[in-house]
Amino acid sequence: MYSDDWKTPQDELLRRCQVFQRHLTAQQIDMAIIVQNADLFYLTGSIQQGMLFVPCSGEPVYCVRRDLDRARLESALSQVVAAPSPRQLADFVREQFGMTPETLGFELDVLPVTFYERLKRSFAEVAVKDVTPLLRRVRMIKSPFELGRMRKAADQLAVVYEAAKNTLREGISELELSAHLELAARLAGHQGMTRMRAFNGEFYGGHVLSGAAGAHPTFCDTPLGGTGLTPAVAQGAGQRVIQANEPVIIDFLGAYQGYLCDQTRTLCLGGLADELRQGYEDMVEILWHMEKIARPGVSWGHIYDSCLALACEMGHKDAFMGSAGAQVGFIGHGIGTEIDEFPFIAKGFNDDLLEEGMTFAFEPKLVYPELGALGIENTYLVTADGVEVLTRCPEELAVV
Amino acid sequence: MYSDDWKTPQDELLRRCQVFQRHLTAQQIDMAIIVQNADLFYLTGSIQQGMLFVPCSGEPVYCVRRDLDRARLESALSQVVAAPSPRQLADFVREQFGMTPETLGFELDVLPVTFYERLKRSFAEVAVKDVTPLLRRVRMIKSPFELGRMRKAADQLAVVYEAAKNTLREGISELELSAHLELAARLAGHQGMTRMRAFNGEFYGGHVLSGAAGAHPTFCDTPLGGTGLTPAVAQGAGQRVIQANEPVIIDFLGAYQGYLCDQTRTLCLGGLADELRQGYEDMVEILWHMEKIARPGVSWGHIYDSCLALACEMGHKDAFMGSAGAQVGFIGHGIGTEIDEFPFIAKGFNDDLLEEGMTFAFEPKLVYPELGALGIENTYLVTADGVEVLTRCPEELAVV
Repeated sequence: MYSDDWKTPQDELLRRCQVFQRHLTAQQIDMAIIVQNADLFYLTGSIQQGMLFVPCSGEPVYCVRRDLDRARLESALSQVVAAPSPRQLADFVREQFGMTPETLGFELDVLPVTFYERLKRSFAEVAVKDVTPLLRRVRMIKSPFELGRMRKAADQLAVVYEAAKNTLREGISELELSAHLELAARLAGHQGMTRMRAFNGEFYGGHVLSGAAGAHPTFCDTPLGGTGLTPAVAQGAGQRVIQANEPVIIDFLGAYQGYLCDQTRTLCLGGLADELRQGYEDMVEILWHMEKIARPGVSWGHIYDSCLALACEMGHKDAFMGSAGAQVGFIGHGIGTEIDEFPFIAKGFNDDLLEEGMTFAFEPKLVYPELGALGIENTYLVTADGVEVLTRCPEELAVV
Repeated sequence: MYSDDWKTPQDELLRRCQVFQRHLTAQQIDMAIIVQNADLFYLTGSIQQGMLFVPCSGEPVYCVRRDLDRARLESALSQVVAAPSPRQLADFVREQFGMTPETLGFELDVLPVTFYERLKRSFAEVAVKDVTPLLRRVRMIKSPFELGRMRKAADQLAVVYEAAKNTLREGISELELSAHLELAARLAGHQGMTRMRAFNGEFYGGHVLSGAAGAHPTFCDTPLGGTGLTPAVAQGAGQRVIQANEPVIIDFLGAYQGYLCDQTRTLCLGGLADELRQGYEDMVEILWHMEKIARPGVSWGHIYDSCLALACEMGHKDAFMGSAGAQVGFIGHGIGTEIDEFPFIAKGFNDDLLEEGMTFAFEPKLVYPELGALGIENTYLVTADGVEVLTRCPEELAVV
């Protein structure tokens, strides 16, 4: 029912699971119970409603409440069974895995309190640990299979970029431009939704911001918010009509088979004032600086510190990564099936090192309250000796 | 920065708050702390990141972490202040409200465990209650102000319906049709995202399903799932190419200033086989039956039971509200800023009565695994003596 390459192969799933199990064993967690959609998709290839039981060794078992037939079709795991009732959970685990776990792992950063307490009540006197940090460590290293999907998401972004250049004109509103780029993305196979892990995050996958509207900070932990159409959403394209000689930010997610790629390009009608043009070129230079220093073994925090220092040297202390007073403490973020994965190219992560196979978006941006926002963003893969860019659109300011 | 009517007026916010405070007082909850976006928007008119403190009497205080200036612009509450650090929370409450709460209310159905535990640690030895059921009771009764927004969301659905009739043609894919309807909705002012409260719910606001693809059940608690483009999403429009003489379901949400309206229409190219046409007419008859019996004082469960009985009498026992084995236990759901509000027109809600001012979507549908899905859905307002339909598109099968 999907296009040809949709299924996550069994060896891919089992390899992911084995890496996760090594972390469980190291942390003395007998079993993890995984339920959140992004994590479930990563470990089963499906998001059908249920729970994945991952013992610290042996085969995982995907217990499905709804829809079991679909889960059996979608998941390449060999154990896909009907979910037991909450009361039978402990018995089920004992019979299925031949053990009574003393320590259980849950995704405590995303499980709602009520849901978690109901689940935990099924297991008398068990110790609980948060397995999210472990699973994020597993998920942050991408396989060739995953990278293939991210490259296809990047292809969508090339389509969006061309559509932006072809659609931008004086007098078009942010909303109208955004709507046409959303159309272009969908027709290029965008899956229609994207995921952010953070509670209340709600990033929805495409920001078209122009002039001063690009400078509005908002609730999300992003350098650029935009107005949106309403305070109920408070981000993204708004009603503002786009004029000549102002920066237009196109910050979009591609999304293919669950995997995301993130790209920002700055466009303008008829050119920008010298100060803004120089600012844009500085952001590209910071991007290139990151490309030179990023490689396995360099800390996430070092890249942040080094690029921030360069931005300050260039005189952008007050406008870098947000308007003054609303600046964010990162320049990049890991990306995969969620937009806020490890690594964080952020202040303070001095003991966390880049590793081969990580993917992250890097987005040096400037925000001037009166003039608007500009900048650039690519998604990168960490290779054996540097980084490879996945988003391949031209990096110069696009003057239309 | 938004269009003219964007602000939620102060008297509207205070009235909502007062009703909520009566519930808090009745449950002996000294104070509620509200953080989830939909609830925050309802009580403050903004979703800027922070916490709303609602004492059981007196004025609420909106403490904002990011972005405070924007929250002050967006919220008509008079107390919008910078959020204290977690360590200072208890002191802040004591100073601001002159009390040390013994019982605190949280949104336990949506707060993630880690987030909640960090918040709760700020208050030594406090009892906790879940205020979500109370707040849902408040939110389920819509004011004239809210209904005005829902009517504008319904206007978007009329645009989507016309676009569907104009765009549907033999050989178009579900994805292509859906993409054009998403464009039409956005150009009509759709805010770009919609909210579902349920954990892992992820309903994303527009389903275009054709023929047998409409019959695929999925993880969501919905009668129709569709394939989607990938098991990572597992719902909505897929790659399937639409043919003549099969039902095409257009199930869309309008979304204006945070408020939703839900509508389903069935279209087809060149007419349907007699069995399907009869099925469609039966679903419209069930819709009309609901319109006759629904009024204040009738239980949610009675409407469900009565309409289910009618569907069974008509011979639709095995296809009503899902394919056999994957049928859902509801025919309607409350709607407002979230798609899964009170009331639930569902099995077992025999002590919960309709009240004037409630709004709900009602969606009798049939699902045949081989032939596909069909049905109709309107959003209704409960009036003093019946219901008023908010979604006003023609109800007959749309033969194109």
